[in-house]
Amino acid sequence: MGKVYTIHDIAIRLNISKSTVSRALRNHPDVSKETKMLVHDMASKLNYQKNILASNLASKNTNLIGVVIPEIARQHFFAQALSGIQKVAKEHGYIVMVCQSNEEFLEEINQVNALVNSRVAGILISLSKETNDYKHIQNAQDRQTPVVLFDRGTDKIEISQVLVDDYKGAYEITNHLIQQGYKNIAHLSGPMSLSISQKRYKGFMDALKDAGRSTTDAYVLQCDNLSLDAKEATERILGLKKRPDAIFCMSDYMAIQVLKELKSNGVKVPEDIALAGFAGDPITEIVEPQLSTVEQPAFDIGVQAAKRLIMEIETDDRETLGFIHKILNTNLLVRESTT
Amino acid sequence: MGKVYTIHDIAIRLNISKSTVSRALRNHPDVSKETKMLVHDMASKLNYQKNILASNLASKNTNLIGVVIPEIARQHFFAQALSGIQKVAKEHGYIVMVCQSNEEFLEEINQVNALVNSRVAGILISLSKETNDYKHIQNAQDRQTPVVLFDRGTDKIEISQVLVDDYKGAYEITNHLIQQGYKNIAHLSGPMSLSISQKRYKGFMDALKDAGRSTTDAYVLQCDNLSLDAKEATERILGLKKRPDAIFCMSDYMAIQVLKELKSNGVKVPEDIALAGFAGDPITEIVEPQLSTVEQPAFDIGVQAAKRLIMEIETDDRETLGFIHKILNTNLLVRESTT
Repeated sequence: MGKVYTIHDIAIRLNISKSTVSRALRNHPDVSKETKMLVHDMASKLNYQKNILASNLASKNTNLIGVVIPEIARQHFFAQALSGIQKVAKEHGYIVMVCQSNEEFLEEINQVNALVNSRVAGILISLSKETNDYKHIQNAQDRQTPVVLFDRGTDKIEISQVLVDDYKGAYEITNHLIQQGYKNIAHLSGPMSLSISQKRYKGFMDALKDAGRSTTDAYVLQCDNLSLDAKEATERILGLKKRPDAIFCMSDYMAIQVLKELKSNGVKVPEDIALAGFAGDPITEIVEPQLSTVEQPAFDIGVQAAKRLIMEIETDDRETLGFIHKILNTNLLVRESTT
Repeated sequence: MGKVYTIHDIAIRLNISKSTVSRALRNHPDVSKETKMLVHDMASKLNYQKNILASNLASKNTNLIGVVIPEIARQHFFAQALSGIQKVAKEHGYIVMVCQSNEEFLEEINQVNALVNSRVAGILISLSKETNDYKHIQNAQDRQTPVVLFDRGTDKIEISQVLVDDYKGAYEITNHLIQQGYKNIAHLSGPMSLSISQKRYKGFMDALKDAGRSTTDAYVLQCDNLSLDAKEATERILGLKKRPDAIFCMSDYMAIQVLKELKSNGVKVPEDIALAGFAGDPITEIVEPQLSTVEQPAFDIGVQAAKRLIMEIETDDRETLGFIHKILNTNLLVRESTT
């Protein structure tokens, strides 16, 4: 087997401190790229291998942060939030691992359990649309693995959460449509199991109410499948006797599908029907016409959630630290599709 | 502490087999959703916790598959490939964890090491653009953790790889531009450290050669930063005395940036300059004009890579199994931007 080399051996040969070697191996931003390369080359030359068993026994947990999100594929939002998480994690010497629940509750349970079993230092979760029970999260907490929820939260357990002001965002964009003179505004909502769908729906309804509009005949279509139902919903809207003159979709992804469908039916946006989304996905600037939307601070949500999680991981007194609910502001983006 | 319950206790109470309980807890597709919910409820009621220490000692590795990709954020390709990976993984009872290298070699090293230390069963990697040394991968292999490369491979080590026929795809779309009568075709290439950039560049050059075109004055601009340089590259192209009448970009993401820049300069696509991308990102169908591109079987790459990895994980005789290089076909998509 030959001699087993340690961080000490690398440090001596490069004439740098052990802590610099340790930080270089963790890719800490305080260490220069040159030093990191030297350390990696020397580690490789000495066939240095971190002693897993020893380090697992010594420190109960790893320097891993697990992230469980509904999907990576379609929504720019999660990709941006992940970038924010990863930036903060890197600055603090953590490595990020992402699991995709595919909006399935059972997947989420398995992934959270797997992360706890892998002894991650902490977990960030954006809940799946099916999740209505939180035992898997409480189980992680019970096993001293801090968990912070981001974007999609719940009031049913005590836990730190970094959310967006979905209510206010939806209220503002609906109010914008009212100010623009649209009389008959439809809403494509998401599954009501999601707190974000509920809050955006409520913001929409309250804006109508506050403007003295009747909400009894407000046309609301619930798209449980988020994107898949948008085409069908558009067809139903176009088939209505009293056709809406504006549509507010609870997500940009839905709005893009609706736009495609409207165009292929020869309906002009915004002349025939105005259209607004929610999220601030860059694709809303690329389509024609450009879509009005509610910009979410996606990157910042990731930053704030990761910072909070790391504080909960590293505190000596988790009980006193307690839990926080942080609500970030949105930003109304008015573009061609509603003006 | 109370009694410690096992899978056996859950099985007896639900009058089902232990293996069904075990598969239900792993979210195996062969078990019905109803049974899974029953098992999870009972596990929760009994406060059942998988005995990590015991199971870690018993089986050296976990049922985790680690995936290291350059980025999650911008490219639909990786999101699709991940979906393919996740589908296969789920069918075989594995959980997928994703790390994003951000195209950084040192991040990739750290992430691969962290995955090995977490005792994942195997690793799928799409190499970062900086990666020019493969010791971290050989180290994983030496520690009996199978690794399969997908999309971005290398000839420098012995390893299974599932790639796309980048050369042929680039050749075909360049040839299409030639057939359409474009005389002066520019190419925006990616960083030459990436095998995919090299192969697409070579496909472009060979198509010109085979059509009897001079390649000495072929206008090739290397965009190391993938997207960031596309705006600048477009400005340079527009400033040329002999302006190209077509541009082939090595990625759709680049092509979208070029399209934006051309439009904002009042240049019409395809009338003034034709434009083609590479990847088959759905965004190419949403922009106006719709972009011609080379569709990659992104989902299928993920499926094939995951199947191969699982075979290498589960084989009794890794040596006889050996390594494979699998090259998947692309599909030319001709749309408005080049016709």
